[in-house]
Amino acid sequence: MALIVQKFGGTSVGDAGRIREVAEQVARTVARGNQVVLVVSAMGKETDELLRLAADVARSRDGREMDMLITSGEVKAVAVVAMALHDQGLRAESFTGGQAGFVTDANHQNAKIADLRVDRLRQALAEGKVPVVAGAQGLSDHGDVTFLGRGGSDTTAVALAHALGADVCELYTDVSGVFSADPRLVPVARKMATVSFDELLEMTATGCPKPAMRSVEFARSYNVPLHVRSAFTWEPGTWVKMEDDTMEQASVIAVTHDTSDGKITVSGLADRPGVAGTLFRTLADRGVNVDMIVQNVSNGGLTDISFTVPSENFDASLEATRAALGDLGAREVTGDADMAKVSIVGSGMKTDPGVAARMFEALATAGINIEMISTSPIRTSCVIRRGQLEAAVGTLHTAFGLDV
Amino acid sequence: MALIVQKFGGTSVGDAGRIREVAEQVARTVARGNQVVLVVSAMGKETDELLRLAADVARSRDGREMDMLITSGEVKAVAVVAMALHDQGLRAESFTGGQAGFVTDANHQNAKIADLRVDRLRQALAEGKVPVVAGAQGLSDHGDVTFLGRGGSDTTAVALAHALGADVCELYTDVSGVFSADPRLVPVARKMATVSFDELLEMTATGCPKPAMRSVEFARSYNVPLHVRSAFTWEPGTWVKMEDDTMEQASVIAVTHDTSDGKITVSGLADRPGVAGTLFRTLADRGVNVDMIVQNVSNGGLTDISFTVPSENFDASLEATRAALGDLGAREVTGDADMAKVSIVGSGMKTDPGVAARMFEALATAGINIEMISTSPIRTSCVIRRGQLEAAVGTLHTAFGLDV
Repeated sequence: MALIVQKFGGTSVGDAGRIREVAEQVARTVARGNQVVLVVSAMGKETDELLRLAADVARSRDGREMDMLITSGEVKAVAVVAMALHDQGLRAESFTGGQAGFVTDANHQNAKIADLRVDRLRQALAEGKVPVVAGAQGLSDHGDVTFLGRGGSDTTAVALAHALGADVCELYTDVSGVFSADPRLVPVARKMATVSFDELLEMTATGCPKPAMRSVEFARSYNVPLHVRSAFTWEPGTWVKMEDDTMEQASVIAVTHDTSDGKITVSGLADRPGVAGTLFRTLADRGVNVDMIVQNVSNGGLTDISFTVPSENFDASLEATRAALGDLGAREVTGDADMAKVSIVGSGMKTDPGVAARMFEALATAGINIEMISTSPIRTSCVIRRGQLEAAVGTLHTAFGLDV
Repeated sequence: MALIVQKFGGTSVGDAGRIREVAEQVARTVARGNQVVLVVSAMGKETDELLRLAADVARSRDGREMDMLITSGEVKAVAVVAMALHDQGLRAESFTGGQAGFVTDANHQNAKIADLRVDRLRQALAEGKVPVVAGAQGLSDHGDVTFLGRGGSDTTAVALAHALGADVCELYTDVSGVFSADPRLVPVARKMATVSFDELLEMTATGCPKPAMRSVEFARSYNVPLHVRSAFTWEPGTWVKMEDDTMEQASVIAVTHDTSDGKITVSGLADRPGVAGTLFRTLADRGVNVDMIVQNVSNGGLTDISFTVPSENFDASLEATRAALGDLGAREVTGDADMAKVSIVGSGMKTDPGVAARMFEALATAGINIEMISTSPIRTSCVIRRGQLEAAVGTLHTAFGLDV
């Protein structure tokens, strides 16, 4: 008998038929002798609809009230999922994040878990019940409802799996696992049987949309085995674990991409201490999450810094950087909104020094110019023109022998 | 400066425009130097939509889960109302029933308030905030979410007004007050300036749909002044208070009606102790709320009992009564689903012995046959054929001088 935490995302519980199908699958899992704890996201597009309602009603975006609003979607979902489980003959009970024991900080819209007291869930399990927990929510010390942010249901599931000592945390979604590249761009992409936490972290950091990066970090920290799989086909998906000898140590296991980057270059900057600090403090104060930063070799006391920012922050970032031109003592600021990033990821890269060179060569052969480069021990990323992205991903997928 | 509890029903907050209008009105009330606590129902048809979702998903109707589901509608509403108040420059905070301090029994779907701890709301008021409380909900001792039932937002508002020592509890709705008869049936019905708790209780018990009867009982118990008024025209409505010398002591102040009655008669019943108990226990066990009961004079050791039940319970009640025929030692059970009830209400009736006779005469003159009669000190009700109801209401409204 295993204890399994199963998380179902919004599309997995998108309508009445889907909820019934999920309940049938849970019943089968229980019938095989397992204990199950469910974590459920808001149904389908519910969260978007709640955001639209808020926009229709008011300009105010108070974090406390936004959290109260958005978390109502998950509460609605857990109640009907519990009812569907009753129909399957299971004893199920729904729980809000607060009822499930999630205590968070008061950082509304993006709260962090501060404590998790699972006594009530343990008791429900001991009574033979299936707890159904609302994802991505908790209560602050003040008793205010908090939202863990988009993708927070994955974090809820991983945290529960850790706290309850579950054997596995299954993240059910609308894809059948983690792929070597986005199958929409690369039809010959293959589903991985296993991937290490470190590799998946690099992948989610460079554009792989699921699971949420924060939940992978959490799972890595506490060594919670993840199984990313489909709630539509129910076939086995991708296991995410600590790296071990059973895993293939390929140099490159995946090609990821991110289409939403803009590049800004500050030229003729005085190459003295503090200049970079001034520049990026300016952007941080505006809430811009700078992604890649590259500083060119100093040339006669002057230097160039290029960095990328998310597309939605591009205009504001360019303006802020231009306004700081005097403070920075720089000559010129240029920007290009039309960039993208392609990355290769693989643990084997650590012991295979020729990987980066092969990447650059493959791109060059395909006529793709590299604008910026950044690396980690198990990843190499290149910023390129957005129009060449699809070609770049396909080229690298082939070059590193990943095509099915 | 007054402390005012304002309750807004579903139609009053039915869409974004309505919510903004409510927020503007609250801002005006605050600008006049008042403290305001809001109680808000689910938006428009939200509760019905949640019930439909439950019906689509599952046959299960577990009370705990239904409460979790339905109360999510009020939580959604309070969050967006709070945001709209922010837009008006007010400091507002939304509260679930549990956060507002409502402790209830665990009788899901129809929970009763067991305790109300308003420390948190008092603190919010002291900080100059406008608390926005989700109507009709609380937490049980076990920490489960509970629903006070349909119309429960009125009860929430009255309970808060009592606990906070508010000067008035304003119940905003889609009608402009309490009328001497349903204006849809009687175009010359008049809005009352005042009505006593006792009179309004008799009116709500005999078909006047708003406010919810339970809230009127609560307000009477604790002498909480109510003001029933419109959230569409904002004009002064009807004050509900203890009877006092300033009120007109008319014999009849209103004609109420209820279209949804069925009548069942058990004939040839042995007139011995315990028979009535057996009969109504049978119905109570099926959850049927019997309304009016009339036992005819015993005739040669046998008696007839007639009673009315809500239309939706009529078929089941008739069947149950027929099945009990043998146990009851009765001769026959007959039923008529097509009945209605018309009532006259007025405190002055207590000291005006001719009122009931005038009612019967007026109905007779209009050719309306009376099937059953029941009375209280300040009310007389007649069961008649449903097809004659509208004529009966109009006739009585005129006969007792209530026409505008």
